[in-house]
Amino acid sequence: MRAMEWNGETLLLLDQLQLPGAVKWIECSDVEQVAEAIETMKVRGAPAIGAAAAFGIVMGARQAVNRDKNEFFNQIERICDRLARTRPTAVNLFWAIQRIKSLIETNADLDVPQIVELIRREAESIMTEDIAINQSIGQNGEPYIPKGARILTHCNTGSLATAGYGTALGVIRAAHSAGKEITVWADETRPYLQGARLTAFELQQDQIPVTIVTDSMAGHLMKEKKVDLVIVGADRIAANGDTANKIGTYSLAVLAHYHHIPFYVAAPTSTLDFSIKSGEQIEIEQRSADEVLSIGGIRIAPPGVAALHPAFDVTPHSLITAIITEKGVVESPDANRMEYLRGKG
Amino acid sequence: MRAMEWNGETLLLLDQLQLPGAVKWIECSDVEQVAEAIETMKVRGAPAIGAAAAFGIVMGARQAVNRDKNEFFNQIERICDRLARTRPTAVNLFWAIQRIKSLIETNADLDVPQIVELIRREAESIMTEDIAINQSIGQNGEPYIPKGARILTHCNTGSLATAGYGTALGVIRAAHSAGKEITVWADETRPYLQGARLTAFELQQDQIPVTIVTDSMAGHLMKEKKVDLVIVGADRIAANGDTANKIGTYSLAVLAHYHHIPFYVAAPTSTLDFSIKSGEQIEIEQRSADEVLSIGGIRIAPPGVAALHPAFDVTPHSLITAIITEKGVVESPDANRMEYLRGKG
Repeated sequence: MRAMEWNGETLLLLDQLQLPGAVKWIECSDVEQVAEAIETMKVRGAPAIGAAAAFGIVMGARQAVNRDKNEFFNQIERICDRLARTRPTAVNLFWAIQRIKSLIETNADLDVPQIVELIRREAESIMTEDIAINQSIGQNGEPYIPKGARILTHCNTGSLATAGYGTALGVIRAAHSAGKEITVWADETRPYLQGARLTAFELQQDQIPVTIVTDSMAGHLMKEKKVDLVIVGADRIAANGDTANKIGTYSLAVLAHYHHIPFYVAAPTSTLDFSIKSGEQIEIEQRSADEVLSIGGIRIAPPGVAALHPAFDVTPHSLITAIITEKGVVESPDANRMEYLRGKG
Repeated sequence: MRAMEWNGETLLLLDQLQLPGAVKWIECSDVEQVAEAIETMKVRGAPAIGAAAAFGIVMGARQAVNRDKNEFFNQIERICDRLARTRPTAVNLFWAIQRIKSLIETNADLDVPQIVELIRREAESIMTEDIAINQSIGQNGEPYIPKGARILTHCNTGSLATAGYGTALGVIRAAHSAGKEITVWADETRPYLQGARLTAFELQQDQIPVTIVTDSMAGHLMKEKKVDLVIVGADRIAANGDTANKIGTYSLAVLAHYHHIPFYVAAPTSTLDFSIKSGEQIEIEQRSADEVLSIGGIRIAPPGVAALHPAFDVTPHSLITAIITEKGVVESPDANRMEYLRGKG
């Protein structure tokens, strides 16, 4: 099960709003289709969004291949602006866009068709590298998972959130492969139910024992000593280790802290944003209230009632036991310790 | 909007599984129908369940009015056993049953028709007293609500959970009536969505400003300093103040504690269970996993996946700022301070 498939011409995206009820692929042949799929969360998960955006730029660049160089550069600028407006919190999106922009700048003296070809190779690299990165995250995180661990996770951080394998779910997969006989509590993760729909689906396919719980059950499970550790992904990590992730993550971090349970964040270094000092500077995407007021198209609340829908929250570094990346693990992260990863970047 | 209507012969229950989409009344004319409505949560909320069960006994007693006295008593025993098996956690159910049983014992020398008449009066008293009790809870709790307070509540504790007015929602109503310009965050309260469906509905009807949030947003709201206090109901309170309430309550209590936000429990003294020392002795009802895996009849998770569904959790008294009852308020509750309420009982 993969989030996307690049056939060399168009980008196929698995419509994650339909899973697990229906396995439906959407074929995107231009930037606007990719941007719309990101906005509506048909493709979601920070690394997957970054890769999808990269292929969006490839398709947009190809459509402009016959323009003169200045027009081409202007068009690339517009394409990148469009993609950058889709979702504000996950930094991998901006990282992928910037990576391609830097490549173009470095090779600005080449002919447009050559530049287009370089963009295609770069996008393909972003995708293939992401799988390798996730496997390294898994290897680096695996030692932190005790044998028989009962692991609580939130949202979906697996193959469907990345180019493949997963971040937090990659660590879970690595621990399972290592024969550690782990079991997983999957938070259903309202409002989008990524846990119930996607994480449960992926773990079931890998025959990793999984039990769905509502987000409200986490504290109760911890109190009953049924959770050995929490591991989640990240959408953006500030220079001091403060981490933005799916709404509900912060509550889990506080609950884990209160119950003396380790709380791990697993993410690629493309999630790091050293340009901001702390989580206070992370913009939290506010999504439509309708996504809270309806489930699967069925209205659950009375007409006219208000709802709030911050898509993410920020967990301060002081509540994080360790940040696990492909380049190494930072225990008890803070501004000083995070420098280790900057150095490796 | 009321949870039930007693017309002197049959009990009309508002089907709370259909709200707010449809306002549908169910007419119960025997014990089995009442028991089934409690089990399937068509009627829910600790005080409402107690009152509904009392009317179930009335209807069962009437059907046995022509039996000889021993047979009548045996039949009452069977009726009470049936009702007691519906839901194990909320103690008001057992309190209502016991109240009628005690009445029968005291008046065992009367003729059966006279006893039946006494049972009817007792059931009607349980209902009408509950409204007055809730109003007293509201009056006792109102001083704890600051002007302009932004109040977070969980589940539904209003007219629909009681005979009328409400417990935690009664305090909110009293604060609103006192002109305190409060606003309410209503946790949607998965899996049954009592907050999104019922609390939002009641508050909207009373023109009390309400915003629905997913259960996972509570920590984020507290961190952003958008919650001034939390107030919830209770299904059973142990002698030391430990409180069983809807799943998710414990997480809220921990989060409130971490953020130095007051956490109040509002409940009638019929919720007190002095027969148990602490919350560890409270049986937590385990309900069907299907109730987590489906929403409004729509399956949200892949086939064959497991889910957990504890309907309640227990909040230790150390996390409770005060317990608000119709007989008074116990601040910083513990086994000694709770004695105040026993004395008043």
